[in-house]
Amino acid sequence: MWKLEKFDLRPDELPVEESLFSLGNGYIGIRGCFEEGYPQDITTIRGTYINGFYDLIPAKYTERLSGFTEVQEKLPNLIDAQGIIIYLDDERVSLFEGQYSDYRRTLHLDKGFSERSFKYKTLSGKTASISFKRLISFAVDELFLNEVYIEYDGEIKVESTIDANVTNYINAFDPRVGEHAKLIEWQETKFLNEKFIAMRSRTYVTDFDIGCIVYHNCSQDGVLSDINIENKAFIKSIYSAKGKIQLTKYAVYTDNRFDREYVLDRGRDIIEKCIDHTFDEHVEIQKRYLDSFWEHSDIQVSGDTTAQQSIRFSLFQLLQSTGRDGRTNIPAKGLTGEGYEGHYFWDTEIYMLPVIQLTQPDLARQLLIYRYSLLDAAREEAKALGHRRGVKYPWRTIAGKECSTFFPAGTAQYHINADIAYAFVQYYLQYKDMDFVYRYAAEVLIETARLWLDTGHFYEGWFVIHNVTGPDEYSCIVENNFYTNAMAQYNLMWAVKLYRLIESQDKEEFEALNEKLSIQSKEIDEMQKAYENMYLPFDKKLNIHKQDDAFLEKEIWDFENTPEDKYPLLLHYHPLTIYRYQVLKQPDTVLAHMLLEDTADEKVIKDSFDYYEKLTTHDSSLSACVHGIMASRCGYYDKAYEYFRESVSLDLEDTHGNTKDGLHMANLGGTLLSVVYGFAGYRLKESGISFTPWCPPGWEGYSFKVYYQSRELKISISDRVTIELMHGEKLDIKLYDKTYQLEKTLEIPVERGNKI
Amino acid sequence: MWKLEKFDLRPDELPVEESLFSLGNGYIGIRGCFEEGYPQDITTIRGTYINGFYDLIPAKYTERLSGFTEVQEKLPNLIDAQGIIIYLDDERVSLFEGQYSDYRRTLHLDKGFSERSFKYKTLSGKTASISFKRLISFAVDELFLNEVYIEYDGEIKVESTIDANVTNYINAFDPRVGEHAKLIEWQETKFLNEKFIAMRSRTYVTDFDIGCIVYHNCSQDGVLSDINIENKAFIKSIYSAKGKIQLTKYAVYTDNRFDREYVLDRGRDIIEKCIDHTFDEHVEIQKRYLDSFWEHSDIQVSGDTTAQQSIRFSLFQLLQSTGRDGRTNIPAKGLTGEGYEGHYFWDTEIYMLPVIQLTQPDLARQLLIYRYSLLDAAREEAKALGHRRGVKYPWRTIAGKECSTFFPAGTAQYHINADIAYAFVQYYLQYKDMDFVYRYAAEVLIETARLWLDTGHFYEGWFVIHNVTGPDEYSCIVENNFYTNAMAQYNLMWAVKLYRLIESQDKEEFEALNEKLSIQSKEIDEMQKAYENMYLPFDKKLNIHKQDDAFLEKEIWDFENTPEDKYPLLLHYHPLTIYRYQVLKQPDTVLAHMLLEDTADEKVIKDSFDYYEKLTTHDSSLSACVHGIMASRCGYYDKAYEYFRESVSLDLEDTHGNTKDGLHMANLGGTLLSVVYGFAGYRLKESGISFTPWCPPGWEGYSFKVYYQSRELKISISDRVTIELMHGEKLDIKLYDKTYQLEKTLEIPVERGNKI
Repeated sequence: MWKLEKFDLRPDELPVEESLFSLGNGYIGIRGCFEEGYPQDITTIRGTYINGFYDLIPAKYTERLSGFTEVQEKLPNLIDAQGIIIYLDDERVSLFEGQYSDYRRTLHLDKGFSERSFKYKTLSGKTASISFKRLISFAVDELFLNEVYIEYDGEIKVESTIDANVTNYINAFDPRVGEHAKLIEWQETKFLNEKFIAMRSRTYVTDFDIGCIVYHNCSQDGVLSDINIENKAFIKSIYSAKGKIQLTKYAVYTDNRFDREYVLDRGRDIIEKCIDHTFDEHVEIQKRYLDSFWEHSDIQVSGDTTAQQSIRFSLFQLLQSTGRDGRTNIPAKGLTGEGYEGHYFWDTEIYMLPVIQLTQPDLARQLLIYRYSLLDAAREEAKALGHRRGVKYPWRTIAGKECSTFFPAGTAQYHINADIAYAFVQYYLQYKDMDFVYRYAAEVLIETARLWLDTGHFYEGWFVIHNVTGPDEYSCIVENNFYTNAMAQYNLMWAVKLYRLIESQDKEEFEALNEKLSIQSKEIDEMQKAYENMYLPFDKKLNIHKQDDAFLEKEIWDFENTPEDKYPLLLHYHPLTIYRYQVLKQPDTVLAHMLLEDTADEKVIKDSFDYYEKLTTHDSSLSACVHGIMASRCGYYDKAYEYFRESVSLDLEDTHGNTKDGLHMANLGGTLLSVVYGFAGYRLKESGISFTPWCPPGWEGYSFKVYYQSRELKISISDRVTIELMHGEKLDIKLYDKTYQLEKTLEIPVERGNKI
Repeated sequence: MWKLEKFDLRPDELPVEESLFSLGNGYIGIRGCFEEGYPQDITTIRGTYINGFYDLIPAKYTERLSGFTEVQEKLPNLIDAQGIIIYLDDERVSLFEGQYSDYRRTLHLDKGFSERSFKYKTLSGKTASISFKRLISFAVDELFLNEVYIEYDGEIKVESTIDANVTNYINAFDPRVGEHAKLIEWQETKFLNEKFIAMRSRTYVTDFDIGCIVYHNCSQDGVLSDINIENKAFIKSIYSAKGKIQLTKYAVYTDNRFDREYVLDRGRDIIEKCIDHTFDEHVEIQKRYLDSFWEHSDIQVSGDTTAQQSIRFSLFQLLQSTGRDGRTNIPAKGLTGEGYEGHYFWDTEIYMLPVIQLTQPDLARQLLIYRYSLLDAAREEAKALGHRRGVKYPWRTIAGKECSTFFPAGTAQYHINADIAYAFVQYYLQYKDMDFVYRYAAEVLIETARLWLDTGHFYEGWFVIHNVTGPDEYSCIVENNFYTNAMAQYNLMWAVKLYRLIESQDKEEFEALNEKLSIQSKEIDEMQKAYENMYLPFDKKLNIHKQDDAFLEKEIWDFENTPEDKYPLLLHYHPLTIYRYQVLKQPDTVLAHMLLEDTADEKVIKDSFDYYEKLTTHDSSLSACVHGIMASRCGYYDKAYEYFRESVSLDLEDTHGNTKDGLHMANLGGTLLSVVYGFAGYRLKESGISFTPWCPPGWEGYSFKVYYQSRELKISISDRVTIELMHGEKLDIKLYDKTYQLEKTLEIPVERGNKI
């Protein structure tokens, strides 16, 4: 239950496996490609990435309007240090041509490394035993380790390669992908001494350097026979031995985005500290890190090993892709692929951060600090759009530029401002960290709230917001999107609350804030008036919140006559057609009801779920998990579990057909939210935390931990709900409809679902 | 009053003059560039175009969604036969370096040619007299004539050039313009005999050939001294003389878009018939054609020579740019520039065709037949958008492909379907041509009407239309755009009317139509139900039609704090900002009230005009004329004249700053509509024709002719309205609120405006 394993090699599944077996540490990410590569006819997206590293490419339009994004930030594929090629008695080992057995590929979720091993029969009939292991270190950000061990009764030759002739992925069937494939250019190759090889490349436009320093340790019988330079950007180190060989390849990646230093010097300093430890010792260090992670963050399931494994896979991959330095975030595909160009979206705040925040406050804080660091860029973006005040966060970005080139389903999603504000508030509610409020949250809340004042206006007494796109990208540029208005309301309300809180707590901080942002008390009153009078579209007859003013007047999509192969609709219908119908790509009102359940009563939440679910295609990977959570909320237990199964299989079974481009991080987050927010019914509000748990059929039980204001709680659910206060002061906690005081342990029977 | 003249040479105005002095005949168009060119630092858009000739270039997107246009048709600049360079005693004549006097440039609107003459002083102090004349023939589509006459007491050398090294216009300050500058490639140069030179080029993607055959006639003392081949795509013919020289350059352009024949053979046949006539003889032929044109189509103004001249300029330029072959149309910039890539828009049907139709039924019919010829392409486009039936005319096109790459302000303008249908109905109403109905109109009306059934649907008993853009491009993707709904209603109503008419008139035609389009009577009933229940958004409090469902709920644009240099808004604000406000680029509801005045009562029309006028920026060149017409309609006489003045000066004084890219044909049409539909209040309806004339202050009077169902009427307005029936049967005619029978002449006093 701590492993992802494959026991057979199916060439058509390899591009997907590259994503699934990706390794990363929030800084580097390397896809699970075969060290020795595949034959030409097998697709590979051979990728090494650094989180937040980017070049700029021109955005293309035939008709470019004012304010359109002119350049796009894009994640480059970096110098490839994965390569290891094996010859046995001069016969090149290839799993696609030769005979092999005992094939096994494992990703160790507890120890944080991957391995691949097999027996290989050469033409002479002799059998070799071969295993590869690789690790990306959580202890040393820059470190990637690769180890090969071979036993063979004959001559063994191992070629280890470093290749700077890399491009981003090109799809021959899609001419658009190839155009800006080359994002970095080789600059120099240095032999520091006979064991070290260093290479440096540079991006074209941003002029960022990337260094890759490799050290080879051939501990056993191997002998370095040659360094082969075909061209200086492609180096081969050749090791030979008889009988057996073990080669450990240490690779350190350094970049100078932030400091503009010489990357190879820093790289050498780092690698020198790493080579004293063997691969196994690094595994030990890695395990210590992960032990602590799993101790607090694991979600344990008993009675369903598949679910258990998938949940741990999700937690592990999420951890691997999360930027930890306050200057980077979580790309939509993590560090596991090139989909969405390495951009960060609202996915972080709504689908991933809530999970991370449960038990990893430092990591969560760093992700929020990243958003804080974008404030100036977001001020510029607001101005570029024509706003007179406030900030407008980019819909998709790496370093702060708006990288969306189709604004109706991009820049128009103003809700990202409120999503980010929401995340700051949630963090505050969970950790009551006033220092965080003073330094970061207050400014973000005020500035995002200001944008709502400039975007909306009062109409017949109501505060209305026109011309935005909600989360559902199958309706674009609408009036009074319920999700947006409700989230903006929360944004405005909390801007005022935090402002008043600071006023009451610390006069000095209060004055500093007023001065820094030139706040007039009139402006705060305006915010209050706006949220108090926020217009939330509602349909009395259906007793549901309207997705937007016009949504319910549109015709319902003809689902009956839409064949399976026409999904996802966005790949088969012009947006004008899709927008004209009641049809959803992903939850919109239903998501608002999840995040802000107090904006609606029970019946409205249920009626809305019933209404919109029928119209939702789940063409987005951000859909199933939210529907699952809200199915739990509405008491549709079978459905909730079905959606959970969908989330779980999305990447592991490639149900959306594009896992090769990278894992769907929001869905991985959503899988975990499905347990915590869905099955356990966890909610975090100003009034405290609450649970409404049930236990899926077939599960014996499940448990997880939650931090709450200097406390750690453990929640276990089977036929009973048990909440233990691991440490910290006693607190009031709501379970179902009742509030209990939790001193040490609280245990009551499960009140929902089909009790076991 | 039959001339456009310039008496001074101002280098910065030359690009605009190139548009103003353009010559054309609906097939060829050539900009009024100087034969000898300008120095490098002066902008020139040296252009020769063939209406409807095009190559294909890829449409660019960074994010391309389903159904997006993949290629764009684009008008190429063709082989340049304008070039004539003069040497006097080996000194090259340049108006930018040498001394000159008596400069004069004239476009003869009555005779259909242009000339440019001046005295030129050489360094030796001697003075030459030089004149250029050029003509594009209305009698021979393919013929362009250029003549130079020089008197000089010394050696004269004339170099006539043909240049196939041409590109489309590149603006160094706008990187987008240059990318697809080269659209044709030179193929061959042939010397048919010592007098003829032939060149052939070809487009890259469409593989269309264009031939240019030149014949030089040096009638006086000139001697052909040389043919100079610098490269085969650039030929110089050099003529020398002493004392004086006259060189006539005949150029014939042929293309093989439709027949795929060898263009140079056809070109030779044509030119051989042309060279028997001198330039002056061709002017005579040209004048005969134009005499007939002016006799029927002139709008005469007395008491205001500026207005008279501008009106004739508009009529003439419109004639020059109108395709006459049923396979081409009128590009938005005519054949006078490269703006909008030579594309045809709704401009034709709404702004230009109504003028042409007044007195040129054959030409109008050809323009409509062009639209009929696009039906199959429009069927494909409807399918590509996801429609189950009907046709969707492209927003901008040459040969039928949708060439709009920004759909919110392009493809989403579904109203073009109704605009085209409207034009077919207007033609029918004016000429009652049943053959035209059977062959063309019925099919266009039914197919466009079908699209409305597939686009709209019934909601609470009303037929509603979501997700379209109206004429005003400052509000995009809206619900129930009044203009669109009202025009769709007219479209549907007339589809049914013509269908029933055919049924009652000709059973055979009726059955053929039913069969051809597989019409079910149920479908016709559906059309009837749709137009009878069409939802037309209305605001009771303001007593105006709402531009769309949400328009009046939006905030009003902050005009007060928008500086002059921020107009046009579209060049300075992101569409998301513009769309969020009540602000118009051009009339929308007001235009609907002009085209379909019976959808609103007097008070609604006036209140709507008052309301929307305040919000209209006139950032579009399609705006002022309509506002002028509706100001007349509402009795705002000063305002009506002011708008007329704006229309008139738009190109002649380059008030929009982009006349260099070509004349604004819709505005030229609109200038003429301002007189006929505006001042004279002409309307054409099923019930007949009507006038509500007034006479602008400062005008002694004005008159024009109108055809109506085999009749020709002359309308003269001064302090009295006089209507003469030139020929044809008597008819009922409405003047102001009263219907009169017109037998020969009708005369009543003017009842509106400030009577003279």
